[in-house]
Amino acid sequence: MAETKLHFDIPRLGPCRFPSPLSGLKFVEDDEEILYPSSLAEIRQYTEKGASPPGFETAGPRKNIHFDPAGLKCGIVTCGGLCPGLNDVIRAIVLSLYHHYQVSAVYGFRYGYQGLSAQYRDTALQLTPAIVDDINHKGGTILGSSRGPQDVAEMVDTLQMMQINILFTVGGDGTLRGAQAIAGEIRRRDLNIAVIGIPKTIDNDISFLQQSFGFETAVTESRAAVYSANMEALGARNGIGLVKLMGRASGFIAAYATLANSEVNYCLIPEVPFSLAAFLDNLDSRLQRRGHAVIIAAEGAGQDLIDKKRELDASGNIRNEDIGLFLKEAIASRYQKAGMDFSLKYIDPSYTIRSMPANPHDSVFCLLLGHNAVHAGMTGRTDMVVGFWNNRFTHVPISLAVSRRKKVDPLGKLWSNVLATTGQPVRMI
Amino acid sequence: MAETKLHFDIPRLGPCRFPSPLSGLKFVEDDEEILYPSSLAEIRQYTEKGASPPGFETAGPRKNIHFDPAGLKCGIVTCGGLCPGLNDVIRAIVLSLYHHYQVSAVYGFRYGYQGLSAQYRDTALQLTPAIVDDINHKGGTILGSSRGPQDVAEMVDTLQMMQINILFTVGGDGTLRGAQAIAGEIRRRDLNIAVIGIPKTIDNDISFLQQSFGFETAVTESRAAVYSANMEALGARNGIGLVKLMGRASGFIAAYATLANSEVNYCLIPEVPFSLAAFLDNLDSRLQRRGHAVIIAAEGAGQDLIDKKRELDASGNIRNEDIGLFLKEAIASRYQKAGMDFSLKYIDPSYTIRSMPANPHDSVFCLLLGHNAVHAGMTGRTDMVVGFWNNRFTHVPISLAVSRRKKVDPLGKLWSNVLATTGQPVRMI
Amino acid sequence: MAETKLHFDIPRLGPCRFPSPLSGLKFVEDDEEILYPSSLAEIRQYTEKGASPPGFETAGPRKNIHFDPAGLKCGIVTCGGLCPGLNDVIRAIVLSLYHHYQVSAVYGFRYGYQGLSAQYRDTALQLTPAIVDDINHKGGTILGSSRGPQDVAEMVDTLQMMQINILFTVGGDGTLRGAQAIAGEIRRRDLNIAVIGIPKTIDNDISFLQQSFGFETAVTESRAAVYSANMEALGARNGIGLVKLMGRASGFIAAYATLANSEVNYCLIPEVPFSLAAFLDNLDSRLQRRGHAVIIAAEGAGQDLIDKKRELDASGNIRNEDIGLFLKEAIASRYQKAGMDFSLKYIDPSYTIRSMPANPHDSVFCLLLGHNAVHAGMTGRTDMVVGFWNNRFTHVPISLAVSRRKKVDPLGKLWSNVLATTGQPVRMI
Amino acid sequence: MAETKLHFDIPRLGPCRFPSPLSGLKFVEDDEEILYPSSLAEIRQYTEKGASPPGFETAGPRKNIHFDPAGLKCGIVTCGGLCPGLNDVIRAIVLSLYHHYQVSAVYGFRYGYQGLSAQYRDTALQLTPAIVDDINHKGGTILGSSRGPQDVAEMVDTLQMMQINILFTVGGDGTLRGAQAIAGEIRRRDLNIAVIGIPKTIDNDISFLQQSFGFETAVTESRAAVYSANMEALGARNGIGLVKLMGRASGFIAAYATLANSEVNYCLIPEVPFSLAAFLDNLDSRLQRRGHAVIIAAEGAGQDLIDKKRELDASGNIRNEDIGLFLKEAIASRYQKAGMDFSLKYIDPSYTIRSMPANPHDSVFCLLLGHNAVHAGMTGRTDMVVGFWNNRFTHVPISLAVSRRKKVDPLGKLWSNVLATTGQPVRMI
Repeated sequence: MAETKLHFDIPRLGPCRFPSPLSGLKFVEDDEEILYPSSLAEIRQYTEKGASPPGFETAGPRKNIHFDPAGLKCGIVTCGGLCPGLNDVIRAIVLSLYHHYQVSAVYGFRYGYQGLSAQYRDTALQLTPAIVDDINHKGGTILGSSRGPQDVAEMVDTLQMMQINILFTVGGDGTLRGAQAIAGEIRRRDLNIAVIGIPKTIDNDISFLQQSFGFETAVTESRAAVYSANMEALGARNGIGLVKLMGRASGFIAAYATLANSEVNYCLIPEVPFSLAAFLDNLDSRLQRRGHAVIIAAEGAGQDLIDKKRELDASGNIRNEDIGLFLKEAIASRYQKAGMDFSLKYIDPSYTIRSMPANPHDSVFCLLLGHNAVHAGMTGRTDMVVGFWNNRFTHVPISLAVSRRKKVDPLGKLWSNVLATTGQPVRMI
Repeated sequence: MAETKLHFDIPRLGPCRFPSPLSGLKFVEDDEEILYPSSLAEIRQYTEKGASPPGFETAGPRKNIHFDPAGLKCGIVTCGGLCPGLNDVIRAIVLSLYHHYQVSAVYGFRYGYQGLSAQYRDTALQLTPAIVDDINHKGGTILGSSRGPQDVAEMVDTLQMMQINILFTVGGDGTLRGAQAIAGEIRRRDLNIAVIGIPKTIDNDISFLQQSFGFETAVTESRAAVYSANMEALGARNGIGLVKLMGRASGFIAAYATLANSEVNYCLIPEVPFSLAAFLDNLDSRLQRRGHAVIIAAEGAGQDLIDKKRELDASGNIRNEDIGLFLKEAIASRYQKAGMDFSLKYIDPSYTIRSMPANPHDSVFCLLLGHNAVHAGMTGRTDMVVGFWNNRFTHVPISLAVSRRKKVDPLGKLWSNVLATTGQPVRMI
Repeated sequence: MAETKLHFDIPRLGPCRFPSPLSGLKFVEDDEEILYPSSLAEIRQYTEKGASPPGFETAGPRKNIHFDPAGLKCGIVTCGGLCPGLNDVIRAIVLSLYHHYQVSAVYGFRYGYQGLSAQYRDTALQLTPAIVDDINHKGGTILGSSRGPQDVAEMVDTLQMMQINILFTVGGDGTLRGAQAIAGEIRRRDLNIAVIGIPKTIDNDISFLQQSFGFETAVTESRAAVYSANMEALGARNGIGLVKLMGRASGFIAAYATLANSEVNYCLIPEVPFSLAAFLDNLDSRLQRRGHAVIIAAEGAGQDLIDKKRELDASGNIRNEDIGLFLKEAIASRYQKAGMDFSLKYIDPSYTIRSMPANPHDSVFCLLLGHNAVHAGMTGRTDMVVGFWNNRFTHVPISLAVSRRKKVDPLGKLWSNVLATTGQPVRMI
Repeated sequence: MAETKLHFDIPRLGPCRFPSPLSGLKFVEDDEEILYPSSLAEIRQYTEKGASPPGFETAGPRKNIHFDPAGLKCGIVTCGGLCPGLNDVIRAIVLSLYHHYQVSAVYGFRYGYQGLSAQYRDTALQLTPAIVDDINHKGGTILGSSRGPQDVAEMVDTLQMMQINILFTVGGDGTLRGAQAIAGEIRRRDLNIAVIGIPKTIDNDISFLQQSFGFETAVTESRAAVYSANMEALGARNGIGLVKLMGRASGFIAAYATLANSEVNYCLIPEVPFSLAAFLDNLDSRLQRRGHAVIIAAEGAGQDLIDKKRELDASGNIRNEDIGLFLKEAIASRYQKAGMDFSLKYIDPSYTIRSMPANPHDSVFCLLLGHNAVHAGMTGRTDMVVGFWNNRFTHVPISLAVSRRKKVDPLGKLWSNVLATTGQPVRMI
């Protein structure tokens, strides 16, 4: 997939005239690049034309910085649904600003972009090392969160009024588009304010990011739900355990949870369509053969089935649009009609998963995300997110990060591994 | 509560003519009694009349036993819903029979009382120390379970055909009544078969039992759900976390989970009625004061509200009889109508909780339950359950154990402690 | 064990002239007693003489209180080694004072009794609901702790200077004796200051207390260590896993950890002497039979063996007084000499166990301990600890609580259960 | 680091004449390469000379295979110390052979290479899906393990006698050299037996492998130990928590545990020398400033200090060679001499960490390692290990994998991140 139109350049507010106060750490040169293509064939498509293959800027501290740390003011905002690691990111930003750059004026806006609105701008909290000291042991976000956009002009007014120089926004697709809009308005007003995004998607579906924070914790936390589903399935004649996991557009959590929990027999994801009949027929035969079954369904799986049923059933009797409940009903109704002795238990652990503290893997990841966001902001980079590619932290323009959603490739290795583990049919259509 | 009609005598199949093969352990004398009343006032009600206050037989190994261990055959069956510790109990029974009494013919009937029916009696598994070795680390039950009764004559036929001498039944109220019926049929047929019940109720609602196995694990496992509910509540403006916990008739799990998890603001249980209006008014004022709230509802709480709504709404639009979903709808509809900015997350962890392995507390409890069940069975006691009173294991006639359900006393210490912790109103009517 | 000289009366500072501000909770009457003896035989020893059997005062809120809540000042101090639940107790005391009695001046003395010394009295922290809000999720103690006594007069000076009316001391034997001394000095100076102890002993070895806080968590946390010991034992030919657990004078943790973790083959406790030769001979034969072994040793087990070796070996080469290291050396040296292929892994999880947060069971227990300590203090009771007997909270004079240490009875049920589980010889002498 | 002499070719036993029975999965072509260098600059060093940059073969199923699955026999052996995930690997190999290739004759050799010796070859276990079904939930290895080499000829005799066609060896450096020797002897005898290594190093120190199984679990499990060390440190005046973690030659676990656990103030690893005096001086000043400190030491850190002390102290009084105990003694002796009030707690969680079951991350990794080992073996590749590079599974010649040890680069990003987090001095010499 050699795309020639990818734009990897990071906007910058101006020159870096101040020496970094950091000492002893390894500085990164601006021209250290992390290759975007990973195979020789892809690379050759560029080099054979005499072009350089595209690459990301490497994140990390620079020798010279744009902002004078003395008197600098920064803001942080967390948006959208909960995700393990939010507090780790907040903490890493505050401590890096404080210890690495001696910036002590850091404000946390409350409840997402709402906190930047005229109505709520006075509720911002000053964040100190003492306040963030051990928040990484807690789930959720100490700043609170909310969904949805706010008036961009009003938010930039807030930044101006509070004399904020760097705004760190932690959030998903929508939040990043909001950050883009804020950066645009700042550009229009010609202000010296950087906007640095930290991409948050528990579903791991942001493009140009190998992995997003919270994802590993989510896969880890899925274990209890799958364990229970399996125990319930084994504990009854024709026992069926059904677990719905997060993943509206992309089935990464479901796929990895399947690989991580060996008990799973069916993994259903948005990227791989299936027909209800084919799935149920296969389930029948598995129950006959093995007496029990465990199913993981990503929340976005089989949405076409629900849509179809809704069309057919104009009376409006479609009771839900939740694939978990939809499958529960479909399976139960089939076996009730057949007079079969069965037991079906449905488990939806989503809220429990997403409100957990980060696991150690994500703690490391969030720590470095936060540090690298601060390093990027101090150099006056803006309209960008901190990314991760080939196991290294990168700078990615927001426009690129939100340009498309990352998906499980039904013909790729990950899905092939899922099939190799569950033994489920390649096609259930 | 001095009841004079309580019947504490345990039926016995016959004399104990064999010396116990146990050595080195402390034997219990048949007349070691554990007092049923615990206050001096109650005891005096008996002693002043020249009567002895009632007491339970103490469980434990006896010097002489009824059954000749040589060639003895035993059976185990687990019934009803999953409960942490089922495998610990199975394991303890098998190992005690094997190591303490050298009884190696132990059969596990599959999927509850179904396994004793004519159709399934051939599916019984022989249970050996190797098979049960580390099953205590697993949730669920290796035997499988099912609900509902089976033909009593058929089940006793199975015991006769398989020459079972002691049947251990692990289950709740219904299961114990089944065991009672089996013991009755055995008596009618004049067979030398003991029936020993191990009471299973994750809700902790069996009378004359201080505590039942799995209950502590359930309270322990509630922590993750309440934690999440609190994180979700704190993470949003007017955030509300609602957790449904087990407890159809008795609110013990909800009450203890409230004491164990300091974040809970409202605990709703079946024993303490409330009106929807009073509850919601109080919730309003809490949200205004504190900005968030965490609610635990036992599954049997507020059933009268659901019934009432059903009556009013003859159209049959009552969408569910689940108090969790009922409250979720009621709260959401109130604040949607009010145009309030709020976030409500509903968490139902029941299946995840009940399928966990026993925690260490319950492991100890189940181990000793199993041992004491074997000791009781070997003496030819029958139609009884192993109980727990004043921190010691007892023998309780099944008839007594099933005579009434244990409930949280709304005027007692436990509920007073809940009120002292949540600060919720004493009356929400 | 009917002791006639037990003293159960609780000293009181004076009359209770103020109505309790508590409303809606269940008040306890001063004459509600919890029987000390638990069997009918013991009770009869008293009643037959026309005497009342001894009993503890029931803890809980009283209708009238001694101190005027308005302007009241209280202090808290935590002493000795870490124990799960310390922060739960601190939190429960602060919140009960604040919410139940509207007392907001609560001071936490830092690092044990040191914090009451002249040198450190200025370092006391004011404790507010905001500060203690979620400290129960943390291990350790937010106040810090230290061992050892301080000058009693100096400490009472501090209480006087700070106008403290109730001092809550959380600690073990030594701490309680310190509290006794402080109460004595207060009496001598005729001050209106109550001293309420909350007994802390992870070993569960304080008398007249059915259970102490942190004990259940300790048993729970032992699981990982025993699990590892077993895995290491199973993973090698003649694998031996040796775990040292807390219990200097009493083997309760070791005994319950043995019952809770079915893999244990030997449990060694201070109360049951053994000879090294007999133990090692038995170990030999187990390794021959089963190929692996798991051993739990309470830290106070076999101290006579160490003493004996020290005497014999006047050169002073005794490398340690730690039974774990002693056994490790003894076992390793035996099998090395014998040229046997073996693997011995020694695990000492003590610090990891004791610094964990309270598990849900202990959270409930600590909450109610704290509440009851506050209720007792408000009535002007002093020189007492909050106890637990027959599953209810009690008032116990400090003098009684420290009068002797609770021990595992080698002829009692608990040890018999340990023997029944491990199958280890009754005597290894 | 562009090394031109790296040898990436994988030896093969012969042609692939049999079609793979796999269906529906994605086959990998033999020429799919994973680039070894990752930066454009490194790649250009090759391309500018007209050479191809070196790369690894991609692991995965091939369309054609070398061995006829019918009647194939395979063996598995696990060697060296315990590591989380061993059972996952065993299970994945057995199930892949069974379900993917219909190979049912799989033998597990007991207790490492010992199991292949003449003395023990009869103890091999036949491994079936039923046996390995849920072993992934257990720590340790169901096969047992041992250290040290065995006679190579004898081991190849065993393979011949048992007609084993593929031997899977799971182990570290030494084990892989053993596998190399076995493969060499097979070559000399001209046998059709493949030897596939699965590299096991909890320390993550095998070269040409981005990550090894068990490493993530080890970092995860370090959390409890660091948590406890911090709680102990905070709970006392001048409290010091000292944790020793695995890492004899490489400090990866210590470094990642430092990043994962924000409480760490000093991270000491083998790759970064320090002087005792400089370290202790720094510790002094930290205690003065902050009152507590948490230290992680990799087991291989500061070995030169121990060697030096040993030289100086010819009397042989060096009590241990354990850096943890060495530092404990050095710190304690300094502060005891200074008469300082301090508390030092030393925690060594190594056995507890390494015997845990794999966490979900490692479960996924081990599953795919096992599958890819089977795919490689079926094609007749030999004398290789399954590796992981750029997030994809690879084939690596054993000679290359054991050619040098992977180390933390003191001038690289990982160590810079550690310094940025702890704030410890760059040089403590």
